[in-house]
Amino acid sequence: MRVFVTGAAGFIGSNMVDRLLSLGHSVIGFDNMSTGQQRFLKQAMNRKEFTFVQADLLERATLVHALDGVDFVFHFAANADVRFGTQHPRRDLEQNTIATWNVLESMREQKCKRIVFSSTGSVYGEPTTFPTPETCPFPVQTSLYGASKMAAEGLIQAYCEGFDIQSYIFRFVSILGERYTHGHVFDFYRQLAEHPDHLYVLGDGHQQKSYLYVQDCIDAILLAIEKADCKVNMFNLGTDEYCEVNQSIAWIGEYLGLTPKLTYAGGERGWIGDSPFILLDCSRIRALGWRPKLTIKEAIMATIKFVKEDAAETTS
Amino acid sequence: MRVFVTGAAGFIGSNMVDRLLSLGHSVIGFDNMSTGQQRFLKQAMNRKEFTFVQADLLERATLVHALDGVDFVFHFAANADVRFGTQHPRRDLEQNTIATWNVLESMREQKCKRIVFSSTGSVYGEPTTFPTPETCPFPVQTSLYGASKMAAEGLIQAYCEGFDIQSYIFRFVSILGERYTHGHVFDFYRQLAEHPDHLYVLGDGHQQKSYLYVQDCIDAILLAIEKADCKVNMFNLGTDEYCEVNQSIAWIGEYLGLTPKLTYAGGERGWIGDSPFILLDCSRIRALGWRPKLTIKEAIMATIKFVKEDAAETTS
Repeated sequence: MRVFVTGAAGFIGSNMVDRLLSLGHSVIGFDNMSTGQQRFLKQAMNRKEFTFVQADLLERATLVHALDGVDFVFHFAANADVRFGTQHPRRDLEQNTIATWNVLESMREQKCKRIVFSSTGSVYGEPTTFPTPETCPFPVQTSLYGASKMAAEGLIQAYCEGFDIQSYIFRFVSILGERYTHGHVFDFYRQLAEHPDHLYVLGDGHQQKSYLYVQDCIDAILLAIEKADCKVNMFNLGTDEYCEVNQSIAWIGEYLGLTPKLTYAGGERGWIGDSPFILLDCSRIRALGWRPKLTIKEAIMATIKFVKEDAAETTS
Repeated sequence: MRVFVTGAAGFIGSNMVDRLLSLGHSVIGFDNMSTGQQRFLKQAMNRKEFTFVQADLLERATLVHALDGVDFVFHFAANADVRFGTQHPRRDLEQNTIATWNVLESMREQKCKRIVFSSTGSVYGEPTTFPTPETCPFPVQTSLYGASKMAAEGLIQAYCEGFDIQSYIFRFVSILGERYTHGHVFDFYRQLAEHPDHLYVLGDGHQQKSYLYVQDCIDAILLAIEKADCKVNMFNLGTDEYCEVNQSIAWIGEYLGLTPKLTYAGGERGWIGDSPFILLDCSRIRALGWRPKLTIKEAIMATIKFVKEDAAETTS
C-alpha cells in the first residue's frame, strides 16, 4: 500500500510512519516542521520506501502533487496546542479545519479514496455521559481546538457522502509514549528539571483524564482499517480507566525520585475549554478485538522515561 | 438596540430587518448582494434608522468597521445552496464557516457580545430519532452545507466559552414565505410557468419535510433572545407537522389551478446529502410560549402567492 502521512515528523505521525514501513508499506511523509522533529524521522529516512516532503498543507499544489498514486491518507497534522487556542484563534481554523479541507480536495483531485483522521475526545466538550460513547448527545463545543476538529470530522463525513470516499475517524484521549512532545507530563518534567522541589499545577489537581499509549493507539487504527468497512467509521480510542492529575504527578515523582511541593492554580478546569473529566466508551473498537497493552500508569512511566532521555540527548 | 444583520438583503435577513425597524431598533444591514435582492430592502432604505453596507464577510476590515457600537449581531448570511455543494465544495467552507469565524473575530475586536445564528436541521444529517431533538445522538454529516453550518455552530460555541460571548443558535427546517427565493416551491413554480402540463420531481416524491413560515421563524428568534439567557442557547425551529413533497405539489397545483403530469427522478433522496425525512422536536422553543401561526399548507400557499406575484412584478 502507498500511504501518505501528514504530520509525519510529529509524535503520533512519526510512530505511524515507522510502523507502516515495518509492515512493508511505501510511505510518503508530509510535514511543515512547525512542531515536527527531524530526529523522529531518523530511522525512516534510512529506508528507500520512505519519501519526505517538507511543506504546509495550505500549499495546495504541492499537496496535490505529493498525493499522486496514494492509496491511503493518514491525516495526523494539526495544531495540537489545545490550551492556547484563545491566544491565536485563527490557528485552529487554518491548521485543523481548512488544512483538512485541502487534504480532502487534493484527494478528490487525485482520486485517492481512503482517509484516517486523528480527531479528539475534545469534540465532546463537557459531556454528561460517562464513559462517553461515539453517539452521545450532540455536544456543545467548549474549545477552539475541539470546534476545529469537529468541523474537520464533518467535512470528511460530507466528502464521504458526496465523493465516495471512505473514512476512519478516531477520537483520541491524550496519547502518551515515545516522541511525546507536549502535554502535562512534559510540562511537569520541565518544571521539575528547573526546580525539583516544587510544581505548579493548573486547576485543582482533581481533573480526571484518560490516556492511551501511542503503540496501542496505532494498533487500534490499523485494526480498524482492516476490520471495519462502513463509508464513515467512527471510533473512540482510549483506555477504560482514568486517573486524577494528582495521581499522575505522584507517578512522575516516583519515577524521578522527587516529592515536590504542589501549588494549585485552582478551579475545576486547567484552562479555558479544558474538560474536568474525560473517559471515552471504547466498546466499539474493543468489539473488533482491540485491547490496550499498557495501563495508564505504564504509559505515563514510558513517557516520563522518554522525556527524560530525550531531554538529555537533545541538550548534550 | 443597535443590531447588525448579515445577509440583510436575503430572504430571512430582510424580513428580520423590517421587523427590527418596526420594533424601534437601529439596524445596520450587511450583504454582498451575491444572492440578496435590492427590492427586499426598499422599505428599510426609507428609514433613517437603517444603514446598508454592501460588502463581503471575508473583507475583515470593512466588517470590523461596520460593527462599531453594535449590541447584537444577527448572522443570516450564508451560502444556502444546499443542493449543489458538490459542484463547488469551497463555497460552503468560505461563505458559512470562514465567514462566521470572521464575524466572531470582528465581534471580539469590537467587544460585541451577543449573536443570533441561523443554522439548519441539516446538521442532523440523516437522523434516526423523530422528531429530532437538539440533543439527539452526535450526527454524521451527509452534506457540505450541513458540515459547514455545524462547523460554524462549533466556532460560535467555542467563542462563547473562550471570549464570554452569548449566542442563540437556531436549527431551521426549510423556511417559507414572502421573499423566498429558492427551494422546491420556487423550482416547481418556475417549471410550471414554462410547461404547465408537466413537472419533474427530484427523488420519489415521498420525501417528508417540515416547513416553517418566515414570520413564525422571526417570532421565535425574538422570543428566544428575550427569554433564554444561557451562554449558548440552542433551539430547533420548525412545525410539529411535516408533509410529503407530493402533498406540497398538490397544494401548489391547487393554487395555480394546474394538474401537471409528474415525472420522478426516483430514489429516496432528492440529491446527494438530501435527508429523506426531516421533523424537528421543537419542544424547547415551545416551552418559551412560542407557537407557529401558520400551518405548512398555509405557509406553502403564502409562498406560492408571493413567488407568482414577485415573478409578475420583476418581469413586468
